[in-house]
Amino acid sequence: MTLSFPLFAQEWVVKRTFELPEFKTVKGESISKLKVGYETYGELNADKSNVILITHYFSGSSHAAGKYGKESESGYWDSIIGPGKAVDTNKYFVISSDTLANISPADPYVVTSGPASLNPKTNKSYGMSFPFVSIRDFVNVQRMLLDSLGIKKLYAVMGPSGGSIQAMEWSAAYPDDVSRVVAVIGPGLSLPPYVIALLNLWASPITLDPAWKKGAYQKNGVFKGLVESLKLITHSSVYFDWGPSNGGELVGDQYVIEKALTDRARARAEKVDANSILYTVKAMQSFNIEDEAKNIKAEILFIPAEKDMIFPPELFEKTAKKLCGLGKKAEVYVLKGRGGHLDGISKIADAGFVISQFLSRELGRSNPCR
Amino acid sequence: MTLSFPLFAQEWVVKRTFELPEFKTVKGESISKLKVGYETYGELNADKSNVILITHYFSGSSHAAGKYGKESESGYWDSIIGPGKAVDTNKYFVISSDTLANISPADPYVVTSGPASLNPKTNKSYGMSFPFVSIRDFVNVQRMLLDSLGIKKLYAVMGPSGGSIQAMEWSAAYPDDVSRVVAVIGPGLSLPPYVIALLNLWASPITLDPAWKKGAYQKNGVFKGLVESLKLITHSSVYFDWGPSNGGELVGDQYVIEKALTDRARARAEKVDANSILYTVKAMQSFNIEDEAKNIKAEILFIPAEKDMIFPPELFEKTAKKLCGLGKKAEVYVLKGRGGHLDGISKIADAGFVISQFLSRELGRSNPCR
Repeated sequence: MTLSFPLFAQEWVVKRTFELPEFKTVKGESISKLKVGYETYGELNADKSNVILITHYFSGSSHAAGKYGKESESGYWDSIIGPGKAVDTNKYFVISSDTLANISPADPYVVTSGPASLNPKTNKSYGMSFPFVSIRDFVNVQRMLLDSLGIKKLYAVMGPSGGSIQAMEWSAAYPDDVSRVVAVIGPGLSLPPYVIALLNLWASPITLDPAWKKGAYQKNGVFKGLVESLKLITHSSVYFDWGPSNGGELVGDQYVIEKALTDRARARAEKVDANSILYTVKAMQSFNIEDEAKNIKAEILFIPAEKDMIFPPELFEKTAKKLCGLGKKAEVYVLKGRGGHLDGISKIADAGFVISQFLSRELGRSNPCR
Repeated sequence: MTLSFPLFAQEWVVKRTFELPEFKTVKGESISKLKVGYETYGELNADKSNVILITHYFSGSSHAAGKYGKESESGYWDSIIGPGKAVDTNKYFVISSDTLANISPADPYVVTSGPASLNPKTNKSYGMSFPFVSIRDFVNVQRMLLDSLGIKKLYAVMGPSGGSIQAMEWSAAYPDDVSRVVAVIGPGLSLPPYVIALLNLWASPITLDPAWKKGAYQKNGVFKGLVESLKLITHSSVYFDWGPSNGGELVGDQYVIEKALTDRARARAEKVDANSILYTVKAMQSFNIEDEAKNIKAEILFIPAEKDMIFPPELFEKTAKKLCGLGKKAEVYVLKGRGGHLDGISKIADAGFVISQFLSRELGRSNPCR
């Protein structure tokens, strides 16, 4: 291994905003002055054929790679996105956007329209009056964002977890415009009832807490139900050997692991909007492209994580089999590791070579269903 | 296979009550007029050497086998306890008791002392003023129950989940008096931090709900936080392919699986006391016999369930290895199946032959650690 030192100032990632005067949801409701944030890495080529869209997970944002500045954190998939990396920004133009109803609207780097946004008609936050938005709506906003940049076709779309759900939705919603999908730590074509129920349980602590006030809580207020929800979300994402080795020690009336989990959730809660969790839960639950799977034209690489407790590898394996049965091209590469669901973020570099090969392979040449 | 029809009226199981005028907890607190229920199957032999104690799981009761009457449900391990079954009541005297702070005090067949009991000093329910009770306290009450029957030694102690925790605690607390342990779907010698956190999350919905009133809720009141807690407990106990095949269908504003989970929890809640869940959570969290493991003399059969999402097989496998390293005799048999944690109840008959062999084997004859 050689260490390299950049000779010139590093280029920082720029967060941009895409705006639409009016957006109509699949259910026919209108959202005025819609905004979502996005960022790009690499350069768009002349015929706009090198575009890779990155779709983010439940509690993520557009920040998939690079840094906004010296003090900023790297994007969640920085280990595979960048010059010379698996998703090589010397070759590809990578674009990543915030979803509708992103759960962290108080994060200064998140731009989203959701229940925490001002309703231009009332000049108050929408709260629970914000229209229901589905994964298809997430994708349709991304579609319009790409349209605004003159981009018609995607070389690939890829994302982890809730991002894999959006990536799969893209392949079914716009089959002619998506050539490749890399779906990481996701369910496949729909959520199993088990996960629909889990999402319901993620939402429960919020609506149980009277401080929620049916969605009309004080803006930027951190309340206990929100913290409990974030605790549960974190707990779902890990594996059995998670936590510090002294996690089982009782300090005062709390176990070390209880305190660690609560402290982390409380810190995260500062940026999170409880109603937006409820909206994102509903959006995820509604994901179902089982009937549309027959339309998919993209070649698909599924990357589950071995010890995922939300979406175990068998879900992607079953999906690949079904797609192969329908004459599609789908293959599975399992990430090894004991990090659970989160391995789809923290260990993604282990699939770097497989992703890079998949992306550079000519379409129609392989027969992964053998 | 032949069908047999009983020629005589079947014998019904009788629920009995064990009472203690005064019980002192490990922490030194007193509980007056302590009561726990118990039931027995089979006959105690002359030298009282054929006793098998069954310890129950988190939301279970003493009702491990048989029926209380024509309309009553069979005990949870009826498939392995009875005449001619793996735990053969023609050979063994089986005794099974309710724990302290059993979570279902409103079940007419549960007898327990816990937060829902009347405090004889105030003539009101203890609520959260009931003393903290640990797994060691559970076991000490069972010890006194056995003493009251003149029973000094256990041929075996066995139980699933929280029952396996009690069984292991027995082996460390009274090493000279326990010859065999059958620990099913449990953690081993202590809870991993992951499960300590999970138990914390089971308790959260209760304390979040203002209807809990810091434990002073209306007696027998079913409140939303209790229902949400029971939903989460059920969800932890199953596996990914749980639920009806139409679970992902939206009916009104609820998914079929959400309604099924909620309906089930609401029905169960009628018998359950929320404070008792909090006490049982604290008891389970405190389980830790890592340092006492060196004292264990019993031979141990560990039976994890393949797809257990609370206590995966690797926990028992690690524990067996540790015990073998300490010169103990421990072996593991994995229950196959896709039912998750609950397979330790519903599929236990699949381990019937292994249990029967383990129980009838002479002590000191095998070398399971090879």
